[in-house]
Amino acid sequence: MRQPQQDRSRATRQRLLESAIEALAELGWQGSTVAVVAERAGVSRGAAQHHFPTREDLFAAAVEYVGEARRTWTREHSADLPTGPERTRAVVDMIVRIYTGPLFRAALHLWVAATSDEQLRTSIVELEARIGREQHKLALELLGVDESTPGVRETVQATLDMARGLGLANLLTDDSKRRAGIIDRWAEVLDATLNAGART
Amino acid sequence: MRQPQQDRSRATRQRLLESAIEALAELGWQGSTVAVVAERAGVSRGAAQHHFPTREDLFAAAVEYVGEARRTWTREHSADLPTGPERTRAVVDMIVRIYTGPLFRAALHLWVAATSDEQLRTSIVELEARIGREQHKLALELLGVDESTPGVRETVQATLDMARGLGLANLLTDDSKRRAGIIDRWAEVLDATLNAGART
Repeated sequence: MRQPQQDRSRATRQRLLESAIEALAELGWQGSTVAVVAERAGVSRGAAQHHFPTREDLFAAAVEYVGEARRTWTREHSADLPTGPERTRAVVDMIVRIYTGPLFRAALHLWVAATSDEQLRTSIVELEARIGREQHKLALELLGVDESTPGVRETVQATLDMARGLGLANLLTDDSKRRAGIIDRWAEVLDATLNAGART
Repeated sequence: MRQPQQDRSRATRQRLLESAIEALAELGWQGSTVAVVAERAGVSRGAAQHHFPTREDLFAAAVEYVGEARRTWTREHSADLPTGPERTRAVVDMIVRIYTGPLFRAALHLWVAATSDEQLRTSIVELEARIGREQHKLALELLGVDESTPGVRETVQATLDMARGLGLANLLTDDSKRRAGIIDRWAEVLDATLNAGART
C-alpha cells in the first residue's frame, strides 16, 4: 500500500539534509541557517521547522546523513575495485576520495564549528569514532591484510590519517596533481611494507 | 639609542597578534572580532585599530605571525634532535607536533574561514604554499635524504600530509595515544623505504 503523504514527507526531509550538507560545504557553519537551508531545498521555513525544530536538530540529522552517505558510497565503490597488482593503488585512491569530496568538506566545517559548540561536538565525536572504526575495518578488508600482523594496524591507520591530511590540503586549492603522485607512491610503500604482494 | 615608545608599540602589536591566534584557536573565526582580541590583549579598541584598521588587516598579520612562529619553533627544535637510530622517530614526532599544537588549530580555523572569504583565502593560500615548501625542505634535511632518489619526494610529502591528518584527528578529542603508535610505525616505514639506515 502506497502512502503518498509519508513519501512526500520523507523526500522533503532528505532534500533538507542534502541542502544542509551543500550549504555547509559552500557557506560554512555560520552561513548555514535553517532559513538558508530551507530556501536551497525549495521548502518553506515552516515545513523545515516541522522536520527540524532547531538548527541543532537539523545538523545532528545531517551528521548522521553524511555518515550514511559515506558508507553507501564506500560500499558501492568497493565492488568496482580491480584485483591483481593494480588493486592497492585503487584502494588507496578510493580511501583518499572519501576525504577529498564534498562530504569531507561539509564534515570539516562541522568539526571546526564543533570546537566551540558542545552539543554539536558530542554528536560528532561519537559519529566520527564509529565512522573511523568502519573505515579502518573496510581498509583492512580491501587491502586483504590481517591486523594480527605487527605494524599492519598502524600502517592502515596512518593511511587513513594521510587521506585526511590530503583532504585538508585540497580545501583552498586544487591539489589533485600533487595528490596523484603521493597515492602512487603510497601504494608502493603499502605493497612493500604490508607484504600485500602475496595477495595478488 | 633606545626608543621606548617604538618598543611599546612593537610589544602592543605582538600582544595583539598572539591574542588573535589564541582567540582563533579557542573561539574560531566568528568569535574572534577585533574587540575580543583587543580585550584579551589588554589593549584599548582604539589602540588595536591604530595597529590594524580592519579585522582583515589583523588576521593577515596574524597569518604571517603564525608562519614565523612555526618557523622559529621548528628551527629551535631541529637542533635538539638525536642522531643515530632514534633520529627518524624523533624527526617524525617533531613534524607531527607542528600540526597538533595550538598554531595548527588556529591555522585550521583560518583555512575554514578562508573557504568563504576571498581576501583571507588569497593571503592564506600564498602563505601555506611557502610554508609547505619550507617544511618539505626541512623534512628532507632532517631525514638526511635526497629528493633525486625516486619516491623520496612523494614519501616525504605523504609524511607531511599524514601529520596534517593527525592534527585534524586531534581537533575534537585527545588523540595522543593512538598517534604515538602511528609515529612509531611511520618511522619504521620511512627507515625501510627511504634507505635512511645508511645515515646512522
